[in-house]
Amino acid sequence: MIKAVVFDAFGTLFDIQSVAAVTEEAFPGYGELITQIWRIKQLEYSWLRSLMQRYQDFSVVTRAALAYTLRCLGLHSDADVVDRIMEKYLHLDLYPDAVATLAALRGRKLAILSNGSTEMLTALVRNSGIEAVLEATISVDAQKTFKPSPEAYALIEQRLGIAPADVLFVSSNPWDACGAKAFGLNVAWIERVTPEAMARACLDNAALPPLTMFKALRTQMDELGCAPDHRIHALAELPGLMGAEGP
Amino acid sequence: MIKAVVFDAFGTLFDIQSVAAVTEEAFPGYGELITQIWRIKQLEYSWLRSLMQRYQDFSVVTRAALAYTLRCLGLHSDADVVDRIMEKYLHLDLYPDAVATLAALRGRKLAILSNGSTEMLTALVRNSGIEAVLEATISVDAQKTFKPSPEAYALIEQRLGIAPADVLFVSSNPWDACGAKAFGLNVAWIERVTPEAMARACLDNAALPPLTMFKALRTQMDELGCAPDHRIHALAELPGLMGAEGP
Repeated sequence: MIKAVVFDAFGTLFDIQSVAAVTEEAFPGYGELITQIWRIKQLEYSWLRSLMQRYQDFSVVTRAALAYTLRCLGLHSDADVVDRIMEKYLHLDLYPDAVATLAALRGRKLAILSNGSTEMLTALVRNSGIEAVLEATISVDAQKTFKPSPEAYALIEQRLGIAPADVLFVSSNPWDACGAKAFGLNVAWIERVTPEAMARACLDNAALPPLTMFKALRTQMDELGCAPDHRIHALAELPGLMGAEGP
Repeated sequence: MIKAVVFDAFGTLFDIQSVAAVTEEAFPGYGELITQIWRIKQLEYSWLRSLMQRYQDFSVVTRAALAYTLRCLGLHSDADVVDRIMEKYLHLDLYPDAVATLAALRGRKLAILSNGSTEMLTALVRNSGIEAVLEATISVDAQKTFKPSPEAYALIEQRLGIAPADVLFVSSNPWDACGAKAFGLNVAWIERVTPEAMARACLDNAALPPLTMFKALRTQMDELGCAPDHRIHALAELPGLMGAEGP
């Protein structure tokens, strides 16, 4: 019996690629490439800092990952440009089906559990206008570690008072879906790039373009010894999935 | 006063790209690409499993990362092919200057601290003929977690009886150099791709070829709030560095 639906934020409700318009404006020709390298380093740094026991909140990690990306690509920037790009992270676009999905799920407790800092998440949720439908916006910052650490997922029960077995956790990030499942949550993974589409993009083409490369790194289900309970292709499938399970 | 020099194995003493000959033979045209995606997923899985508290040894992680890579690229393989590729991981080439460097450092305690499993490392060290010059080959497996967890670096003192302040740790992996430094070891980072070379490869070329992309992801010093004590460009610089510090 699912009493709460808890969403990952970055890449799940919010389209992190929407920052590409700003990076492209700042660095013409490099916009998409910057967002892709940036995202990978952002994730790496969250995991590495957790393991090193040198936690810093997600805004610090995100800014550091952007600094790495620009340095690495040999792109020079001043603080103003970096501030403008970082500001976009507080105004990411929702996926087109997010608002309707949240509305259709009303009646259950709805929340976000994200690696984002409290300040980032508060701004993001307010700026996107979904504040009213959410019971809680939970930042891992309370535990000073990042997902997929069990301590991060434990925040759901601590904040909502609902046991993991009664929660559906929704994420498009394969590693996040695995981490949540390993912790004991019910998990719906949003597979936005199907294996067939991925294989077609790679077929007979060993010299893959950069964007395909990055999709190869982080869109397919990971081999971490866990499988999500549900595999869907868009947020819009969630109300049907919930309906099939009974209210 | 440096009493021991401890080396990372994969990418530091041993060239993991040397597995590309075998992957290329198995999957013509994809050899180098496979090794690059494989390496990134191998590292990701080691960090993720450590954070998830679902440790499995490095041979399991390495095989799982290879399975992800082949599936993602739409390449079909049977168990024989996978076994043959995995076998190469026990016969990686040493970097050309490794043997002479180890010989020149004799007199100090020399050891390896690696994410590799005891079985993998034992085979690798024996097959490469450097067994005799090493005081110890230390696997993180004893702690059931991977670098850059402090528990992993703590094994050096536990096994060699030498305090972190008296150890020089050598790694070409930026995240490993940062993790070792955060733990309190003296660190020499081998910068095999200079920022100038990286920037040249990226210059005026937003459509970077895959191999440059991967170099952009993992050859430059990371932004993790730590800096190595020494930045060298090859193992061969170590004896000079040690000489300058006194025996």
